[in-house]
Amino acid sequence: MDAVTTERTALRGKYAGAAAYLDGSFMPLSEAKIPVTHWGYRRSDVTYDVVGVKDGRFFRLDDHIKRFRASMTAIHMDPPESDEEIRDILMKLVLMADVRDAYVSMECLRASPAPGALRHPASCRAYLSCSAVPWISIVTSEMDMRGVHLMIPKVRKIPVDSFDPRVKNFMWGDLTEGMFEAKAAGADFAVLLDHDGNVTEGPGFNVFSITDGVVATPIRGGLDGITRKSVMELCEELGLPLEVRQVSEDEFVNADEIFTCTTAGGVMPASRINGRIMGNDRPGPLSMKLKEAFWAKRAQGWHGTEIL
Amino acid sequence: MDAVTTERTALRGKYAGAAAYLDGSFMPLSEAKIPVTHWGYRRSDVTYDVVGVKDGRFFRLDDHIKRFRASMTAIHMDPPESDEEIRDILMKLVLMADVRDAYVSMECLRASPAPGALRHPASCRAYLSCSAVPWISIVTSEMDMRGVHLMIPKVRKIPVDSFDPRVKNFMWGDLTEGMFEAKAAGADFAVLLDHDGNVTEGPGFNVFSITDGVVATPIRGGLDGITRKSVMELCEELGLPLEVRQVSEDEFVNADEIFTCTTAGGVMPASRINGRIMGNDRPGPLSMKLKEAFWAKRAQGWHGTEIL
Repeated sequence: MDAVTTERTALRGKYAGAAAYLDGSFMPLSEAKIPVTHWGYRRSDVTYDVVGVKDGRFFRLDDHIKRFRASMTAIHMDPPESDEEIRDILMKLVLMADVRDAYVSMECLRASPAPGALRHPASCRAYLSCSAVPWISIVTSEMDMRGVHLMIPKVRKIPVDSFDPRVKNFMWGDLTEGMFEAKAAGADFAVLLDHDGNVTEGPGFNVFSITDGVVATPIRGGLDGITRKSVMELCEELGLPLEVRQVSEDEFVNADEIFTCTTAGGVMPASRINGRIMGNDRPGPLSMKLKEAFWAKRAQGWHGTEIL
Repeated sequence: MDAVTTERTALRGKYAGAAAYLDGSFMPLSEAKIPVTHWGYRRSDVTYDVVGVKDGRFFRLDDHIKRFRASMTAIHMDPPESDEEIRDILMKLVLMADVRDAYVSMECLRASPAPGALRHPASCRAYLSCSAVPWISIVTSEMDMRGVHLMIPKVRKIPVDSFDPRVKNFMWGDLTEGMFEAKAAGADFAVLLDHDGNVTEGPGFNVFSITDGVVATPIRGGLDGITRKSVMELCEELGLPLEVRQVSEDEFVNADEIFTCTTAGGVMPASRINGRIMGNDRPGPLSMKLKEAFWAKRAQGWHGTEIL
């Protein structure tokens, strides 16, 4: 065996099931803990990204690392690790966890100011926290079969000029409140409006609506999702007209079909919105076409990076 | 010695300098760490409060615990500890840290859903994280002498209908960006506007402005601060007219005096706003009168609870 193979053999299954990298060291995920004094926790001064692994292949790994770097830069963070080193860490984590289907997270957070230093984020070093765990869909198999039930909550999405949602973040207070409103309404998930009454995103997912055969997705107010980007590519391939623009609440709740998409779920068709049944109360035909194409292409290695 | 005295003697200085209570156990603060999988960190699903201790006395302890309970209730959290138990934990932490002037934090955060449970915050138990550390003012002694230099950043405060700022929270993305804008402008702190152009608050503090002898403070968009409430009481005692209402950017940046207030600083007069020098570039006279009255009354035990 060559040196690389030997190293990989030594890593495989080292922290089987759930591996972490925290502030320069690898460890079992159960040992990865953040000091309560660190601003990553006590000021949610952190950005993150999540990349999926299916059948031993990352999906769009470099796109995720690129977005993660852009997020870090936007909030003035520069951890010691380069993009190439982050790539290597994520690879090792999947090997250590030894899972073929994984949910791989990369986070960069601030520590606390050194004693005596000015109490300013610029006085805090930034460090990485990464992990690999078995992939779990955010939808249950029941939701996957019947389609998800969505609703529009009263709570509004944090606006772009308060915090740019393209910087993937943990400030989920609006989304969490939306989840409680959804639960109270008997729905699975909330989709939040912005302050102009346009659709943005839900907790951890982007949305698309389909009306008269035209697919539409909000242009702003949410994350520039990488699964969303993949769906856009699929629309082009399948010849489905796509519009990236403002989507009003009225258009959204009256759409023929709706689907959501995310790393932790892929394409997830909806069957109800605000209690209204769409189609036959099951995932719509164009949504299913996109969902099937998404997974079929993934199985063929689309945008894949092999973990060796 | 009676039993209570014996217990207290055993506790005093047990974790000298910095003591913590995490998820049911006391420990040195350096050991208090949050699993990276917990939603308190990865969704900033947490609320907190901070009470000050000066000369061995808590300031408005029960007001802080009452507000903390209201915050927890607002975001559907119900940890195992009662208000009376929280009070006892905070007392013990100050004894363990053995500091006469302390900054005492109480936090309630969500863990992660049990395996197999729905990925919803309602599936996560809530637990407490509390600590006592030596009190540090957010202003340096230089800022205290010359008055703080404030500025209005471009970033806007997260609006009330996205997350209620009266629920004291760690979603500081807007405030953190404001701190970077302040640094770039050569100022000490940012004071954020809401989306209607009215003044809200800064990172961890409320604000007051004084124009023609009338004191004004924003009615919404920020925390209902307990030091703010104390300043209101002082205005009444000192016969200063006070108005709680919307304060526009224009009024604020043209005020005769401005001061900020917080648990970790008390009353902190400003001397500059957006580069404009107020008065003689030193804390204004009415601001100083309120500051002196605040600390004089604190020294006399105002709203104090003795730590025995």
